[in-house]
Amino acid sequence: MSQPVPESNNPADVRMRGFVQRSTVDEVLAWLDGVLAPLARELVPIVTAGGRVLAEDVMAGCDVPGFERSMMDGYAVVAEHTLGAAPYQRIRFSVVDQSLPGRPAKRSIDRGSVIRIMTGAPLPAGADAVLPAELTEADGDDIWVQGEVSPGKNVGQVGEDIGQGCVILSAPRRLRPQDIGVLSSVGIAEVPAYRQPNVRIVVTGDELLPAGTTPSGYQITDANGPMLQALCARDGGLPVNPGIVPDQPEAIRAAMNEDVDVVLVSGGSSVGQEDHAPLLLARDGELRFHGIAMRPSSPAGMGRLGSRLVFLLPGNPVSCLCAYDFFAGRAIRALGGRDPDWPYRSVHRTLRRKLVSAVGRVDYARVRLIDDQVEPLAISGASILSSTSRADGFVIIPADSEGYAAGSLVETWLYQP
Amino acid sequence: MSQPVPESNNPADVRMRGFVQRSTVDEVLAWLDGVLAPLARELVPIVTAGGRVLAEDVMAGCDVPGFERSMMDGYAVVAEHTLGAAPYQRIRFSVVDQSLPGRPAKRSIDRGSVIRIMTGAPLPAGADAVLPAELTEADGDDIWVQGEVSPGKNVGQVGEDIGQGCVILSAPRRLRPQDIGVLSSVGIAEVPAYRQPNVRIVVTGDELLPAGTTPSGYQITDANGPMLQALCARDGGLPVNPGIVPDQPEAIRAAMNEDVDVVLVSGGSSVGQEDHAPLLLARDGELRFHGIAMRPSSPAGMGRLGSRLVFLLPGNPVSCLCAYDFFAGRAIRALGGRDPDWPYRSVHRTLRRKLVSAVGRVDYARVRLIDDQVEPLAISGASILSSTSRADGFVIIPADSEGYAAGSLVETWLYQP
Repeated sequence: MSQPVPESNNPADVRMRGFVQRSTVDEVLAWLDGVLAPLARELVPIVTAGGRVLAEDVMAGCDVPGFERSMMDGYAVVAEHTLGAAPYQRIRFSVVDQSLPGRPAKRSIDRGSVIRIMTGAPLPAGADAVLPAELTEADGDDIWVQGEVSPGKNVGQVGEDIGQGCVILSAPRRLRPQDIGVLSSVGIAEVPAYRQPNVRIVVTGDELLPAGTTPSGYQITDANGPMLQALCARDGGLPVNPGIVPDQPEAIRAAMNEDVDVVLVSGGSSVGQEDHAPLLLARDGELRFHGIAMRPSSPAGMGRLGSRLVFLLPGNPVSCLCAYDFFAGRAIRALGGRDPDWPYRSVHRTLRRKLVSAVGRVDYARVRLIDDQVEPLAISGASILSSTSRADGFVIIPADSEGYAAGSLVETWLYQP
Repeated sequence: MSQPVPESNNPADVRMRGFVQRSTVDEVLAWLDGVLAPLARELVPIVTAGGRVLAEDVMAGCDVPGFERSMMDGYAVVAEHTLGAAPYQRIRFSVVDQSLPGRPAKRSIDRGSVIRIMTGAPLPAGADAVLPAELTEADGDDIWVQGEVSPGKNVGQVGEDIGQGCVILSAPRRLRPQDIGVLSSVGIAEVPAYRQPNVRIVVTGDELLPAGTTPSGYQITDANGPMLQALCARDGGLPVNPGIVPDQPEAIRAAMNEDVDVVLVSGGSSVGQEDHAPLLLARDGELRFHGIAMRPSSPAGMGRLGSRLVFLLPGNPVSCLCAYDFFAGRAIRALGGRDPDWPYRSVHRTLRRKLVSAVGRVDYARVRLIDDQVEPLAISGASILSSTSRADGFVIIPADSEGYAAGSLVETWLYQP
């Protein structure tokens, strides 16, 4: 594990010395995956459970359908009574009642009678098949039947959709709209789902103006707070961001100690005296990593404070996004029971220009797709947030690689599918 | 355009006759795409704008950064003053001030002096470059400089991220988290986005019990209402579903006339006397299509009632999902400015068993992915909603095809990527 260098009286001197040693991305991910587990379950009303992740298998408490039902519009009959019916040997039946969905027939069937029935309606007592209307001809209150049916024909059996006691859906499954329908059909009112992590976004920096403010003088408007809120919401977290936190240890400490599952600190993550969060985390909790062999985001850190996972994200907006993508987003997804891997789709494309990196460091290079090839962005410093809007996605250059030559086939992760 | 057959005194008789003529899926989609246009724009607070669709291009009202800033930790210098500096010919400077982000130096630079500077901090008056800390050696309040820098080195120029007056993001773009950051960085407080369609879900059927109720007797629990709510929310609509509407014309009429953009009627969509919605729509508005050459969902219909788009979705839950996927979802996405096409990803896979269809009809066949092949679901009637949960996706068999032989490569749409 890497450590910040000791304090000195001169913030700049301290910060300029940088990190004594950086951890590798693999080390950080291995630790993170070791401590991540889905949060406790909670019961969620079914109409709001779309997209949530099942925390337990769900079993059916009843059969669906709970009664024999007709699969088509026609006539409920005793199949045996139709034996021998044919166009040249029609059999006459009287229609004695009708069965509609939710409104069953009152009468039952005996020889010589049928009951008109609609799709989804319950099969009347005595009937064992449904005769399609096409095999009949109406004649007043009677019908002429000109074909046979076999027992069970056009009848939906009890439990044919869902059988009582069967597992309908298994955990951990992210619920699709049709899953909600299936759960509703067995009468489930609330679904056991993993709790969504509460995420406190702690944006620090005396140079920052709140979102929605025009930047002026030497102050810049906070970009990381709103971006992190949107990232967190996308990944199933419940972000809380009451505004910029003053660059004072006690204010930052109070914000980091709120009752949440995850703390994202943006800015002040490095090793200078102005960088309070790492020192606070090291003192009050565990600063597990600080300084990571990657670009951008090398000053990122993480650790634990009580039961909270704390991510120290660099203030530079591209670094902030990158550190979120690599670490914090993974945690938020995993805590909520989702697939921890990137919510991005990847494609393989040919590089138009070489991508240079350094051995020992993971690179997160923003790229555009042009004519089905991949073009690294020319201006892509960690301070150029607009590069991530211009980019269609990114290419990862692993730590053991010096980069890729032009013409290489590279895996490209797309910000938007 | 197809029409329901005329009324008769016997609901079953009427319904059994079915549709006189069915419209093709292509006809329906052509009409739908002709009437769909994004809704009016509204201003959305930036912190809640993630995932919304920009209704206008957004221009930058200011430069980002708005001042020259340091790209690294080091010393702000006049580049010319470092000329000739080398490890064997060090030049001594006094450090007269420091510049931190948001806290600029008070002093300016003259020959013999430098100002300590942090990444992101404003370049002090007089300076034109930043000397990396590695090229210096501290000596009390002075530093020894052992290397040259050229003018502009390690300095971020005004507007290098975003230039004032430039278009930052173009409509229609679905906003990514980093876009929110970019918009915030130029001081934008509210984003012009297409309004999200309000969608009234009208679930009808005397056989239905409300979601959350255990099915009993001949009643079944509503599956379509919660499913449609989840589908609609996924596609950017704002669903309203106050509960099951009694199977009475005036109740259905009142629900269809609420102040919304889209009405989804579930159940009672066919041509019997119990099927009120098509008759109401034909009388009060326009029943543009009724009966579509597809399976499932052939009794689906659609039209307009005032400014509302009305979709008549069959009560059978698989038909309901299919008709939503083909038509209603397309409308909801397009009204909100999103890509109208399916929000599903497709892959090409080999069929394990043949898929049979009929020429003249579009089929929506639920399938599973097994060992990287596609297996059609054995039980897949329109009443078996659980088939859509068991399915990984679906294969479309177009109207001009009799189906696909085993071993064919087919495009498979995945419910979940």
